[in-house]
Amino acid sequence: MIVVMKPGATREQIEAVSRRLVELGFKTHPIYGQEKTVIGAIGDKKALSSEAIINLPGVEKIVPIMKPYKLVSRELKETPTIVRIGGVPVGGRALVIMAGPCAVESEEQLLTTAMAVKAAGAHILRGGAYKPRTSPYAFQGLEEEGLKMLARVREEVGMPIVTEVLDTRDVALVAEYADALQIGARNMQNFRLLKEAGTTGKPILLKRGLAASIEEWLMAAEYILDSGNPHVILCERGIRTFETATRFTLDLAAVAVVKENSHLPVVVDPSHGTGSWRLVPPMARAAVAAGADGLIIEVHPDPARALCDGPQSLHPETFDRLMGEIEPVALAVGRNLASSGIINNKNC
Amino acid sequence: MIVVMKPGATREQIEAVSRRLVELGFKTHPIYGQEKTVIGAIGDKKALSSEAIINLPGVEKIVPIMKPYKLVSRELKETPTIVRIGGVPVGGRALVIMAGPCAVESEEQLLTTAMAVKAAGAHILRGGAYKPRTSPYAFQGLEEEGLKMLARVREEVGMPIVTEVLDTRDVALVAEYADALQIGARNMQNFRLLKEAGTTGKPILLKRGLAASIEEWLMAAEYILDSGNPHVILCERGIRTFETATRFTLDLAAVAVVKENSHLPVVVDPSHGTGSWRLVPPMARAAVAAGADGLIIEVHPDPARALCDGPQSLHPETFDRLMGEIEPVALAVGRNLASSGIINNKNC
Amino acid sequence: MIVVMKPGATREQIEAVSRRLVELGFKTHPIYGQEKTVIGAIGDKKALSSEAIINLPGVEKIVPIMKPYKLVSRELKETPTIVRIGGVPVGGRALVIMAGPCAVESEEQLLTTAMAVKAAGAHILRGGAYKPRTSPYAFQGLEEEGLKMLARVREEVGMPIVTEVLDTRDVALVAEYADALQIGARNMQNFRLLKEAGTTGKPILLKRGLAASIEEWLMAAEYILDSGNPHVILCERGIRTFETATRFTLDLAAVAVVKENSHLPVVVDPSHGTGSWRLVPPMARAAVAAGADGLIIEVHPDPARALCDGPQSLHPETFDRLMGEIEPVALAVGRNLASSGIINNKNC
Amino acid sequence: MIVVMKPGATREQIEAVSRRLVELGFKTHPIYGQEKTVIGAIGDKKALSSEAIINLPGVEKIVPIMKPYKLVSRELKETPTIVRIGGVPVGGRALVIMAGPCAVESEEQLLTTAMAVKAAGAHILRGGAYKPRTSPYAFQGLEEEGLKMLARVREEVGMPIVTEVLDTRDVALVAEYADALQIGARNMQNFRLLKEAGTTGKPILLKRGLAASIEEWLMAAEYILDSGNPHVILCERGIRTFETATRFTLDLAAVAVVKENSHLPVVVDPSHGTGSWRLVPPMARAAVAAGADGLIIEVHPDPARALCDGPQSLHPETFDRLMGEIEPVALAVGRNLASSGIINNKNC
Repeated sequence: MIVVMKPGATREQIEAVSRRLVELGFKTHPIYGQEKTVIGAIGDKKALSSEAIINLPGVEKIVPIMKPYKLVSRELKETPTIVRIGGVPVGGRALVIMAGPCAVESEEQLLTTAMAVKAAGAHILRGGAYKPRTSPYAFQGLEEEGLKMLARVREEVGMPIVTEVLDTRDVALVAEYADALQIGARNMQNFRLLKEAGTTGKPILLKRGLAASIEEWLMAAEYILDSGNPHVILCERGIRTFETATRFTLDLAAVAVVKENSHLPVVVDPSHGTGSWRLVPPMARAAVAAGADGLIIEVHPDPARALCDGPQSLHPETFDRLMGEIEPVALAVGRNLASSGIINNKNC
Repeated sequence: MIVVMKPGATREQIEAVSRRLVELGFKTHPIYGQEKTVIGAIGDKKALSSEAIINLPGVEKIVPIMKPYKLVSRELKETPTIVRIGGVPVGGRALVIMAGPCAVESEEQLLTTAMAVKAAGAHILRGGAYKPRTSPYAFQGLEEEGLKMLARVREEVGMPIVTEVLDTRDVALVAEYADALQIGARNMQNFRLLKEAGTTGKPILLKRGLAASIEEWLMAAEYILDSGNPHVILCERGIRTFETATRFTLDLAAVAVVKENSHLPVVVDPSHGTGSWRLVPPMARAAVAAGADGLIIEVHPDPARALCDGPQSLHPETFDRLMGEIEPVALAVGRNLASSGIINNKNC
Repeated sequence: MIVVMKPGATREQIEAVSRRLVELGFKTHPIYGQEKTVIGAIGDKKALSSEAIINLPGVEKIVPIMKPYKLVSRELKETPTIVRIGGVPVGGRALVIMAGPCAVESEEQLLTTAMAVKAAGAHILRGGAYKPRTSPYAFQGLEEEGLKMLARVREEVGMPIVTEVLDTRDVALVAEYADALQIGARNMQNFRLLKEAGTTGKPILLKRGLAASIEEWLMAAEYILDSGNPHVILCERGIRTFETATRFTLDLAAVAVVKENSHLPVVVDPSHGTGSWRLVPPMARAAVAAGADGLIIEVHPDPARALCDGPQSLHPETFDRLMGEIEPVALAVGRNLASSGIINNKNC
Repeated sequence: MIVVMKPGATREQIEAVSRRLVELGFKTHPIYGQEKTVIGAIGDKKALSSEAIINLPGVEKIVPIMKPYKLVSRELKETPTIVRIGGVPVGGRALVIMAGPCAVESEEQLLTTAMAVKAAGAHILRGGAYKPRTSPYAFQGLEEEGLKMLARVREEVGMPIVTEVLDTRDVALVAEYADALQIGARNMQNFRLLKEAGTTGKPILLKRGLAASIEEWLMAAEYILDSGNPHVILCERGIRTFETATRFTLDLAAVAVVKENSHLPVVVDPSHGTGSWRLVPPMARAAVAAGADGLIIEVHPDPARALCDGPQSLHPETFDRLMGEIEPVALAVGRNLASSGIINNKNC
């Protein structure tokens, strides 16, 4: 930590800050410049209230030097983490494609979609049984009934399932059915939910909050790892900006920034990230080229009648075409698309 | 709802869209322009999947006409709602000042602060027993022990208390102790928590999410009202923007926009909204001048040693000075600061 | 400047960075922490390419310690600068109100508006002869003809005029007519225009760019001061955020941040800052309460027929009412509204 | 245009709005809903002040139906435009790579870089002779001397050159030397510069403003086309968001949105778009996968000593490696990298 003193800070002020730092367990190294003094403070990061030093007289600003996360950091663990959902490894050379409807609407809708996306090469089935909706008047999901449909379709089609959990009270129930739990963007800083989901030991797909910095996102993952669960997959899904031509702004540079700073795998959601099915194919290709470990894509057998997120859902045949486009891009960047069948064998 | 067709949309496409709208329960009114056709669709807002019409061939965009919220709307209820916390009315002519530490750290810290802010004229005591923290290594609050301290200090000092609830599982417990429940910015779209908090019937202080549009914020309040609880106070606390000189950008125009569109009271949090105690006084004055119904301000007896949010906490004497500055601004805009004593009498 | 080395940076890397810093004229002070080494570098700020040190092996980040601006800084000059437009002092105890139409449309429109706003108490007349418009098909201003109208109305009504200049080639011409030159938000980083306007010696009203940080805004002012012209008034006019209920998000905390860091006066434009005439009065009051030195407000005799920015223009009678609301707020924060007559006498 | 009336708008108000619309040359089609009336208005887009109708009593909002741009629109011209810089076609099947230093620093630096990037396969040389710098104390470019160096290096190496113009007064001079003029992000809404650059008839590389919506960016291009110059290449270079891990947020979805709405070619600048050379390769690959027609990349022979933008400049050998990575991605999406030699033959 570096404490920058104001120009004109007095010797007494500088000494008072140094004393407080020493009290907090830091070793101090003042550097006297012509206009400003800065104090280097070396020591325990757990000195949690150290930011409050900003309130001491004469202090201009505090500059943290250490990253606030440890367990998720590449500095701690250099080799990439591979997280297995069912038997599907996420984070290795092979890209993983998760696909399915925004919401589970009926067993038929889910089964149709699952068979279509599996036939097209997807590895994992997504589908929401609990839906966070901006409006209380919108469809809120089939809840446990939806979870049961997911489980039955998993048996029938042979794909692991990932589904969202919204409430600490539902975590145990959802974990009974799902192969991986999704924490949605709006719950990225629902710290209780992070901890509770962490304790299940299940893989967690952690979406980036729509106004979360990459550092805050990694700190949310840190909560899960700190709860004893190392199986976290990060998911970039677009951030909120001034641009209104797209629903969100998909921040693909975040994929590379995460890779540089963390050992966790990162996938991309071009459906929520753009809000428009026409933009899903180019952004899916771009995500792969940027180094994502996988994609999560909304597919619906009849998007114009979807109960949720119809505008951003792909028709199964558009999804199939997209899978054909993704493979050469994957190969171009030294990755590949594992056949869904092979993975399935391991899995079932 | 207005459906805008692409230029060059065929008659068949226009008719297909009209048929689908009729199926969904709308009456349609096509208008044929020179370059584009638009279809006015009048009818039931509950036709939830209507946005999925965007996927039909030839459709360019959908323009909603009706506001998505009802219960919170000024169109439904013209007179301003007054919400009582303890006996303190929020939303009337008299401004309400809520003050206290970010986190309850000890009974002594809380009592000292409470007495100081009450002496300075504050009406309601704030203080967190459950703290949502970006880092798992930061102080997470005293939990039930903190709630008990809040309750004891309420007795001793005679101020109603507002405190945050983070988890659906804690709602009943927090509601036992608190006069009002706070839903924090990071939980604004934790819809389960909104509903659960709503069912307590307690007043809810609903903070704006840091990337929430005003419409989404009102929709979150709609969840609470829809759960049968009309006692909602909105709280503007800054949105996330590119500017880094302040922790957030306090959006005071939101106060006026809310007043125009909703009957609910709205207060402002200049502490989180700026992140710096030096900016709290000017923004507190500005919030009152903009028409806020009250303020919520962090005060700590020793900000440089606070376990949470020290940089934005006021010393009690700075708070006292600020109260002296707020009153003339309140009078200048036709409001006043009720004496904390009088309100207290009603209250206890 | 502090250079933070990566964890695991080698002794050779640290030494190479130190050598390069010494080459660039810095004195270096390494601090060896447990995990990271940081190098304090004291010396000449003009070592412009110092940021390129980030490219040396082993460097994690560079933290600047000195502020990048000098001439506009409160550290250089503690007393507030007062800038005179015509004879009207901006930056003193008395608030200054600038009002008038977005665009000069005709002499009659301008004269009517000028007389109305002066009668209501405004001190300076604003009006654009050159208009930057998003669309090439929108009204672009009356250009020199508009400048002449401004000059004639100034004579007739006795108010100094402020008007925008868009192009380095027009600076001399506009400076012939205007009492103050406005640099618009979209030109805030048109550095050639800043320098050219600076050389006229005229007061410059420098609007904040819609995506400009406060630091960049002060750096733009630094360009003008560096050209030898100290007469700069800053104008906060809203920044671009995700919120769409208002045209921009008026950042009133910026007023206080500027006051803390610079000696220059700062005014607020609630018309552009909100985009809606109904939001102008509350935000005008809030701006004054936040400590602004003045306001610039769009007024049009018939907003529904304005050629530019009608939705955000006030009717003269709404403006008159607003002036009545502003005065008590000004007094509440220890300021006042100088009578436009008295100022005028000094002026003419 | 759709005019939405407030709930409770009176018959008189509705009629007054209709009359005004008719006065402005629109045909009106009212639709009476249960709660609100909307008025469809068909007619001339040039009725510029129509937005001012928002000020009429009873009006809630105005919804534009027509896009504000015409000449750049895909609706006007379906086939993609190909713009030639020197002899290099931009917008066809072959990707075009522009590379070179941020600023021209010396003939040697420029020549070294040009030979290196050409050898690596780049087609066009970039380099700034006029530099817009946030600080007046930063290197501002070699100006005409730099233009001459660019011209000499073009002769020597055989690459067309693109260079930025900042000031209307320099347009003629820069156009004498350059094969294409660049309008930088900070000048995207410098409408005078757009027009002046347009009149040269030279190809214009128009960077997106850092807070510009895609629509505003297309409107800026419309200015150039409206000045009679159809040779516009759009360049996405990152927008400003809350994320600070990258200098800007590169909005690759914008590439696809532009392609959908306009016939103009669009290239991507991953150097400014990320601010860090380590992020340039993944984002360059992603841009190509997203459908960009080319890339513009900063390369410097010794980034740690660059006078400008060192942190985001690639070493020539990193650039060479990147060129090897781009080609397979291009092929994967049905594009290719024309050999720089072949293009050069056409060109010289």
